[in-house]
Amino acid sequence: MGKSVIVINGPNLNLLGTREPEIYGAVTLADIEALCAGHGNKLGIEIAFSQSNQEGDLVDAIQNAAGSHDGIILNAAAYTHTSIALMDAIKASGLPTIEVHLSNVFAREPFRHHSYISPAAAGVICGFGAKGYVLAIDALADIFEK
Amino acid sequence: MGKSVIVINGPNLNLLGTREPEIYGAVTLADIEALCAGHGNKLGIEIAFSQSNQEGDLVDAIQNAAGSHDGIILNAAAYTHTSIALMDAIKASGLPTIEVHLSNVFAREPFRHHSYISPAAAGVICGFGAKGYVLAIDALADIFEK
Amino acid sequence: MGKSVIVINGPNLNLLGTREPEIYGAVTLADIEALCAGHGNKLGIEIAFSQSNQEGDLVDAIQNAAGSHDGIILNAAAYTHTSIALMDAIKASGLPTIEVHLSNVFAREPFRHHSYISPAAAGVICGFGAKGYVLAIDALADIFEK
Amino acid sequence: MGKSVIVINGPNLNLLGTREPEIYGAVTLADIEALCAGHGNKLGIEIAFSQSNQEGDLVDAIQNAAGSHDGIILNAAAYTHTSIALMDAIKASGLPTIEVHLSNVFAREPFRHHSYISPAAAGVICGFGAKGYVLAIDALADIFEK
Amino acid sequence: MGKSVIVINGPNLNLLGTREPEIYGAVTLADIEALCAGHGNKLGIEIAFSQSNQEGDLVDAIQNAAGSHDGIILNAAAYTHTSIALMDAIKASGLPTIEVHLSNVFAREPFRHHSYISPAAAGVICGFGAKGYVLAIDALADIFEK
Amino acid sequence: MGKSVIVINGPNLNLLGTREPEIYGAVTLADIEALCAGHGNKLGIEIAFSQSNQEGDLVDAIQNAAGSHDGIILNAAAYTHTSIALMDAIKASGLPTIEVHLSNVFAREPFRHHSYISPAAAGVICGFGAKGYVLAIDALADIFEK
Amino acid sequence: MGKSVIVINGPNLNLLGTREPEIYGAVTLADIEALCAGHGNKLGIEIAFSQSNQEGDLVDAIQNAAGSHDGIILNAAAYTHTSIALMDAIKASGLPTIEVHLSNVFAREPFRHHSYISPAAAGVICGFGAKGYVLAIDALADIFEK
Amino acid sequence: MGKSVIVINGPNLNLLGTREPEIYGAVTLADIEALCAGHGNKLGIEIAFSQSNQEGDLVDAIQNAAGSHDGIILNAAAYTHTSIALMDAIKASGLPTIEVHLSNVFAREPFRHHSYISPAAAGVICGFGAKGYVLAIDALADIFEK
Amino acid sequence: MGKSVIVINGPNLNLLGTREPEIYGAVTLADIEALCAGHGNKLGIEIAFSQSNQEGDLVDAIQNAAGSHDGIILNAAAYTHTSIALMDAIKASGLPTIEVHLSNVFAREPFRHHSYISPAAAGVICGFGAKGYVLAIDALADIFEK
Amino acid sequence: MGKSVIVINGPNLNLLGTREPEIYGAVTLADIEALCAGHGNKLGIEIAFSQSNQEGDLVDAIQNAAGSHDGIILNAAAYTHTSIALMDAIKASGLPTIEVHLSNVFAREPFRHHSYISPAAAGVICGFGAKGYVLAIDALADIFEK
Amino acid sequence: MGKSVIVINGPNLNLLGTREPEIYGAVTLADIEALCAGHGNKLGIEIAFSQSNQEGDLVDAIQNAAGSHDGIILNAAAYTHTSIALMDAIKASGLPTIEVHLSNVFAREPFRHHSYISPAAAGVICGFGAKGYVLAIDALADIFEK
Amino acid sequence: MGKSVIVINGPNLNLLGTREPEIYGAVTLADIEALCAGHGNKLGIEIAFSQSNQEGDLVDAIQNAAGSHDGIILNAAAYTHTSIALMDAIKASGLPTIEVHLSNVFAREPFRHHSYISPAAAGVICGFGAKGYVLAIDALADIFEK
Repeated sequence: MGKSVIVINGPNLNLLGTREPEIYGAVTLADIEALCAGHGNKLGIEIAFSQSNQEGDLVDAIQNAAGSHDGIILNAAAYTHTSIALMDAIKASGLPTIEVHLSNVFAREPFRHHSYISPAAAGVICGFGAKGYVLAIDALADIFEK
Repeated sequence: MGKSVIVINGPNLNLLGTREPEIYGAVTLADIEALCAGHGNKLGIEIAFSQSNQEGDLVDAIQNAAGSHDGIILNAAAYTHTSIALMDAIKASGLPTIEVHLSNVFAREPFRHHSYISPAAAGVICGFGAKGYVLAIDALADIFEK
Repeated sequence: MGKSVIVINGPNLNLLGTREPEIYGAVTLADIEALCAGHGNKLGIEIAFSQSNQEGDLVDAIQNAAGSHDGIILNAAAYTHTSIALMDAIKASGLPTIEVHLSNVFAREPFRHHSYISPAAAGVICGFGAKGYVLAIDALADIFEK
Repeated sequence: MGKSVIVINGPNLNLLGTREPEIYGAVTLADIEALCAGHGNKLGIEIAFSQSNQEGDLVDAIQNAAGSHDGIILNAAAYTHTSIALMDAIKASGLPTIEVHLSNVFAREPFRHHSYISPAAAGVICGFGAKGYVLAIDALADIFEK
Repeated sequence: MGKSVIVINGPNLNLLGTREPEIYGAVTLADIEALCAGHGNKLGIEIAFSQSNQEGDLVDAIQNAAGSHDGIILNAAAYTHTSIALMDAIKASGLPTIEVHLSNVFAREPFRHHSYISPAAAGVICGFGAKGYVLAIDALADIFEK
Repeated sequence: MGKSVIVINGPNLNLLGTREPEIYGAVTLADIEALCAGHGNKLGIEIAFSQSNQEGDLVDAIQNAAGSHDGIILNAAAYTHTSIALMDAIKASGLPTIEVHLSNVFAREPFRHHSYISPAAAGVICGFGAKGYVLAIDALADIFEK
Repeated sequence: MGKSVIVINGPNLNLLGTREPEIYGAVTLADIEALCAGHGNKLGIEIAFSQSNQEGDLVDAIQNAAGSHDGIILNAAAYTHTSIALMDAIKASGLPTIEVHLSNVFAREPFRHHSYISPAAAGVICGFGAKGYVLAIDALADIFEK
Repeated sequence: MGKSVIVINGPNLNLLGTREPEIYGAVTLADIEALCAGHGNKLGIEIAFSQSNQEGDLVDAIQNAAGSHDGIILNAAAYTHTSIALMDAIKASGLPTIEVHLSNVFAREPFRHHSYISPAAAGVICGFGAKGYVLAIDALADIFEK
Repeated sequence: MGKSVIVINGPNLNLLGTREPEIYGAVTLADIEALCAGHGNKLGIEIAFSQSNQEGDLVDAIQNAAGSHDGIILNAAAYTHTSIALMDAIKASGLPTIEVHLSNVFAREPFRHHSYISPAAAGVICGFGAKGYVLAIDALADIFEK
Repeated sequence: MGKSVIVINGPNLNLLGTREPEIYGAVTLADIEALCAGHGNKLGIEIAFSQSNQEGDLVDAIQNAAGSHDGIILNAAAYTHTSIALMDAIKASGLPTIEVHLSNVFAREPFRHHSYISPAAAGVICGFGAKGYVLAIDALADIFEK
Repeated sequence: MGKSVIVINGPNLNLLGTREPEIYGAVTLADIEALCAGHGNKLGIEIAFSQSNQEGDLVDAIQNAAGSHDGIILNAAAYTHTSIALMDAIKASGLPTIEVHLSNVFAREPFRHHSYISPAAAGVICGFGAKGYVLAIDALADIFEK
Repeated sequence: MGKSVIVINGPNLNLLGTREPEIYGAVTLADIEALCAGHGNKLGIEIAFSQSNQEGDLVDAIQNAAGSHDGIILNAAAYTHTSIALMDAIKASGLPTIEVHLSNVFAREPFRHHSYISPAAAGVICGFGAKGYVLAIDALADIFEK
């Protein structure tokens, strides 16, 4: 109750649904935002939303979350596998962070199996498409309760 | 509606909560079973439960799930990292399978970072304790709807 | 003449033919048993048959073969790649053992390219489906002759 | 004084002495049991004995040791190198556990050089044949004293 | 005919020719732009040009190319070897993309031998200095014809 | 019926039996040829035979098999482990190819455990000496029937 | 002007177009030869042509090029990844050598990502089919001019 | 004398001292700036200061240093381990560059042991907190003298 | 009876007990010497003692043991993991050698998991503190008996 | 104030300046000693000096530093990369230790990039020649103050 | 006395001395042949000579040596590092074989550090130019004597 | 003429011939010294001789060779594979150094295949027993002549 969560999305996720819907599905990032906002509303959790193709912008977003929000849902997309800067930002933020991926990254190329985010995250949810963000909100709600 | 899910737990999970509660918490496997049953009840999903320390019993349980259940929630514990037999059983079952871990395995020893289960699973949820099973039921419900 | 061979099958092979015939073909393990029995009959070799999803049961079966049988045909399936216990059992049995795989494991995932069984086996036959068991009986017959 | 120790042996150790005595020597597992019982008697330590070819049975035996015994002597044989489940069971048992091997595993194949048991064990004794079990009882007696 | 191509250059390529001409030669990025424009003119292909030191800007440029251009020539410089985000952007763009490097990267340090760009590119041209861009335009013209 | 198979042997196999019979046995390549011809005769399969110490000759032999023969039995000996050219030739030939080795290569030096031939072959037979060629003819006969 | 280039093709490239046109396309090596000859004609560069399935013949061809030709276009096919002898021949020839591949080798199996040729080549062109040879002639022409 | 040095700081270093002082200490980046300015003043060296969370901004800062400054002190933080672009920028700048880290990175996670910066740097100083920047100024002063 | 054993200790073991007793315990090397002498006395085995921080001195001590002693107990400390010279000396000595470590090296840093000593030793005892030396004397006594 | 530091130099550093001055410069170890003594004098820190080509002597020197000195400056030269014994000695000494290298080891052969010293050191300074020792004294002075 | 040795040279060695003498020196293969013949003459050893760029020809030459010669001196050049076929031929020949290289291959690229020839050779001589062949003749003479 | 060479032998070579002659042969180090002295006498080269089990003594011997001798013959035995200090000493000595091994190290354990000495040596001779030292003197004589 009275909690606030920021959903931070990384590179190329701005293209969701508007391009190649036969591959990525018809769900847009706006749809995911609406889905999250609706679910947050039910739980009394305010949901903020942010997306950038810049690694440094994502670092900024995580840094700024501390003080403004109570938890982070992070889909860092390609930067998941290459960014130690994001890991350091999560650790510095001190906020519970849920790592989300739309696809099951472990069923894809080997270089997507390693995440610099995971060791700094509270937990990981992957493979459930847009539903994964909703589950992440539930997971944060559960963490807030404890 | 009318769906059935089996929750299969692997080696040493029978000890949950009854031993070393200062480490593993006070939640027992029976508590998780009750939590899942209650949540399944809300969603109209029947929840079966199974645990074994034997890799082959888990293979059997997955094989038997096909025909009796519509989805699998699998916490294979230590066998996650060493069992190709479980991966093959999941593929053979043809059922959507959610891999769950109580702890965030990616923040633990390196040999817990690789899973033979993940490539055969629909998705992975880890790090949320007992809540992870509830999220997995929600994820399966979402898959059943599609 | 007067020889006896045991065919030991590992995890998930009990599902052959009865499930997903479009993938694994319509040949069941019972069909393979009949095929082997018939071929053994022609050669005057008695063929015993065993299957288990338990690694330890397979160890038992190999241990018991010594004394009861003259050779082993082993399709250890997934345990091929993870079981040193099976390798040790084969060495302890002192019986000529033929490693068989239905599919060409070397054309599949990299983790199926390594076998703990092979160094302890007399030889390896893979990629020929049910026919591979028949070839293995011929190979054992040839070994018995020498 | 009044302590109890369980000696747990893994796959293929049931064959000791009765088969291929030119390789494994004439000492049987029963001989080792008698040796241990006799030595335990001298020290006032009760020695229980258990063997299985099933990984899961060994997990059960370790789990059951907690509450019934004060220390474990574990020769997991081939499972030493492949079983994370045994490592987890040892950690969960909370009992001092001595890893024993009859042969000097470090002078054998490279895959026998790594043990998942060792990091969870109090100590390791290998290369001394049946005598190693006696040394392990002495080591546990020393631990009990402290 | 009537096709448009964007040439995207990555980090430090803005320094070409103006600094250390004894190393990098006297050819500037402006020279390359003129060379490409002239060659495009001959082939009736419009050539756009872009450079940034920011990984995210290059992702943006590739994303924006879809809709505005028919093909991409990408010299991602150092990001070639570290950016999965660029690979994902190329795949998402759906445009034929030619990877170009001024130097023969395979004759340099080992970490320059791996490219995340190559698997997503139509082809690779490296080692020919500014001429490589001209060859890439020809290669795209050939692709447009098919 | 009416099928033709070519048996192609690689480097150093011309020495079989005539040199170091205590190691390689007394069976010569001519013996194997006679054995194969006899067995083919029984099955109504014509058996051609070829050997070379030149990798390129083996490539030629495989290329020429397409059009002249219905299947290939290939013992590429040392080139098994180093020749991608042979793999490409097999793929280009479009003929079912059985990889044969006289010895159990998996019980020898580690560099003999990897084969560039296997992924392009229908199946692999190793460890049975000259008998392996006979088994390979049977395997091809089985493939021809399907 | 007055320059001469030899195009050297390696194993299995003799099969181009005449077999499996649905995979490799209908372009034959003769077509590529005609294409190159025509393009060379336009530029006043004489184009010689050579193909062999023998690694040593390719070494000979490269050795012989020195003295007879001014540049080499080399598609060593499978030998690209396994032949240090070709690398040494290129270095010894002292001629500018362009490495060409019809397909984008970096989008294929991992063992095709490494080239022993590249470090000794002036540059690399891959992924453009027959057009790649034409681009290589242009690249050599550019090198001749400097 | 009359020399100018720019101190460039990378991602998350803007948080120094203001957050989690129990971990990172109470020293802020502003404190370090003051410390450096004071020390530079003593030595007659002007000290400029810059920080960004963007890899590309750091590339820009290094590029711009050439012409404006005589030396660089670079604490690239997390980008140290992942950025080839920074290495290329340092090489292009032609300026003596000192790599500084507050903590002893070699006593931390293995992925912090490798630096793309080091081979391009004049030297490395790590483990001394804010004092490291002062030592780096002294080191540059020593280099300027030579 | 009438046997003599030398206990050889490697680098930094001279510091035992006198420094940082809260870490290494209060047991000194002199205490261990007394413990060993006492135990040897019981068994009628003479115990010599030696320590050096020099790898070469340890080589000398092992060389000299042959002729003067009947067995070696070696705690080579840090040289365990880096010294092939010690392995060669043990092999040359022809004496049964027991490798001892005070701590369980397999529960420490990965570089302490590999021992050059082990393959040349009769057996290994680690993790039991000073008691390990006593066990090693017992193990040697058992070897002397056989 | 009243502090004492020992500078310990490893193998081959005794040759500094007296041999191959065109490579190693004209600065001798005696020059460095004088430089350090002079700088220590300014700071009121006594500077002792030691050099040996023997790994074990360096272990002794570090052991002896505890009790006699307040800090160590260690240039272990080649032993940096191979000596776990030195790492253990540093840890046992309990003294703040600064690792110094004359050259930038990270710009040299790969086997010089790993240091067993670094994880046990307070910090590392490399690449600054003799000046590095002076910086190390400053770093220790700073540590003494805290 | 009355012994015969064949010197077999591999790919690109035919170019020695006639091309790039500034790199490879002015010594031709004919010079080496004369040098060897002269030295053989002194020792009463007949020296035959052979060179080919074909791996298979070298296999033939080694096979043919058995029966005609008493020892082999083999400089397999680039095939040293890639040819298992040559290793197998040497083993089959049963002749003492000396591996020779003109340059010190261990001071060159890493892929020249591994030799498939060495484990099958009597010994290795490298780095002494043409003199190496003379030393190899002496080495064989010494082997003949024993 | 008038040249002097020092032969430096490493750890355990003092045991040659006097112990385990069935393994190492009856040749002692004194025999090798006599052999070398005799051979040097024929060539007018003075031969000095040195042996130590201490790595640092070998470093000293190499350092001292510069000024006293014209070349070094070094059999560093086990230190060959572990000592960077010896490599550095050879480089510093500026003397031509021949690496010698009695056995063919490439036919032994993998850890004996890598040498830190080789890249700093003029050449390598191994596998010829005592004769190798004589060949090394010849090789040095040849180098002295050039």
